[in-house]
Amino acid sequence: MLSKAKIKYIHSLRQKKFRQKYTSFIIEGEKMATEVLLQGKLTVELVCCLPEWAQEQTLLLKNCAAEITIVDDIELASISALTTPNKVLVVARYEDVVLNETYIVNNFSLYLDGVQDPGNMGSILRIADWFGIHYVFCSHTCVDIYNPKVVQAGMGAFLRVNSLEIEFETLKQRFPQLLTYGAVTNGDNIFKYIFENKGIIVLGNEGAGVSPELLAQVDRKISIPGGGGAESLNVAVAGGIIAAVVVNQKK
Amino acid sequence: MLSKAKIKYIHSLRQKKFRQKYTSFIIEGEKMATEVLLQGKLTVELVCCLPEWAQEQTLLLKNCAAEITIVDDIELASISALTTPNKVLVVARYEDVVLNETYIVNNFSLYLDGVQDPGNMGSILRIADWFGIHYVFCSHTCVDIYNPKVVQAGMGAFLRVNSLEIEFETLKQRFPQLLTYGAVTNGDNIFKYIFENKGIIVLGNEGAGVSPELLAQVDRKISIPGGGGAESLNVAVAGGIIAAVVVNQKK
Repeated sequence: MLSKAKIKYIHSLRQKKFRQKYTSFIIEGEKMATEVLLQGKLTVELVCCLPEWAQEQTLLLKNCAAEITIVDDIELASISALTTPNKVLVVARYEDVVLNETYIVNNFSLYLDGVQDPGNMGSILRIADWFGIHYVFCSHTCVDIYNPKVVQAGMGAFLRVNSLEIEFETLKQRFPQLLTYGAVTNGDNIFKYIFENKGIIVLGNEGAGVSPELLAQVDRKISIPGGGGAESLNVAVAGGIIAAVVVNQKK
Repeated sequence: MLSKAKIKYIHSLRQKKFRQKYTSFIIEGEKMATEVLLQGKLTVELVCCLPEWAQEQTLLLKNCAAEITIVDDIELASISALTTPNKVLVVARYEDVVLNETYIVNNFSLYLDGVQDPGNMGSILRIADWFGIHYVFCSHTCVDIYNPKVVQAGMGAFLRVNSLEIEFETLKQRFPQLLTYGAVTNGDNIFKYIFENKGIIVLGNEGAGVSPELLAQVDRKISIPGGGGAESLNVAVAGGIIAAVVVNQKK
């Protein structure tokens, strides 16, 4: 059984300020919990799981240094941020992102400017994970990448994709040799533009797109040619298309 | 003020069986309501709006044959399916989809096999709308395209994209000359495959992908090359990438 203090602690991690205070976040569900425990890169503090999951994963839990608490359905529901809790909830420490400069200057990265919807943020991290994009940089106006809904939608991307809050200007100063590409609706056709095998793709906010201040700083503006009647694409879909095209042009 | 019967009727339209019974559906928000009224293709039955919206749109409402009811915030919230109701709710009739056979055999269409999430379904319709894909066919296991959440996520796609529930076998029998492409994780690379300027792209269910029964019937299997660690892409993101590539290869 979980103590009241523990329940309160887990609940507090739904808020960014407490995640930052404790540098910890919540990971839910069988698939991601198993992956985190198997991979062993993150420090796991707490594992709260149903007895059947504990039984299935005896070996995994045996080798786990975290505090393990067997909970029932009601207890799990009380700590879960999911509509349908899925057998296990893990609390893990997140680590400082290390910038591999040689890697960054030779590959594509993403920069997100004010992406606010947790589902979109998770989807974009999952896209980066699919295409092997190792770095996703975020403005301070983005939803926090350790928000439980982002973690859920990211399907384990946090295990492989590095994400860092950094202002665009600072990023540009740090990597002045990299071209930056802003996704807009009236830029160069991504299917005809020759990308130079590396660079930073900038995606904007759901409603407003890339902010004018940031757009004034990008080197190129790029677009996905449409031809239909819709005014725009969802930011995650647009990000997926651009990532697919630039990464595969490279090959 | 809305009568109790009217409120009950509007509420009933959240359910597929009542939408089918009345062949009507709900459209919410300023943007889509204005578009529906301006376009004039659909028969609008009811307009329920806040007084300020009625005032802003005097001309539009003057030319509108529908029953117009001015409601207050509380009444609007009581009929809205949105978390934050947005000034106006419209009930409109949906019409039978006409299959333009000449168009279909010369262009790309989508076939959705068991897409269940309303947000994904709406996103896919929006993608079709962006790329000028006129037909999105759906298996009976898909979420209904007139579900209020689908309509919301589709951002007005229903005005331009035709969507029809039809079994895959029937569709193939009707258009035997069209090649069908199933999206899988181990098919031909979409960036290297030469599409013949037309065909039917099949996208599968969120968890299970395209069903084995349906996959046995497609002509080709296609994939989005990744290279990262993620197991899959979200179905709407995958659909967006494939649509972007096939439609732009055509140009």
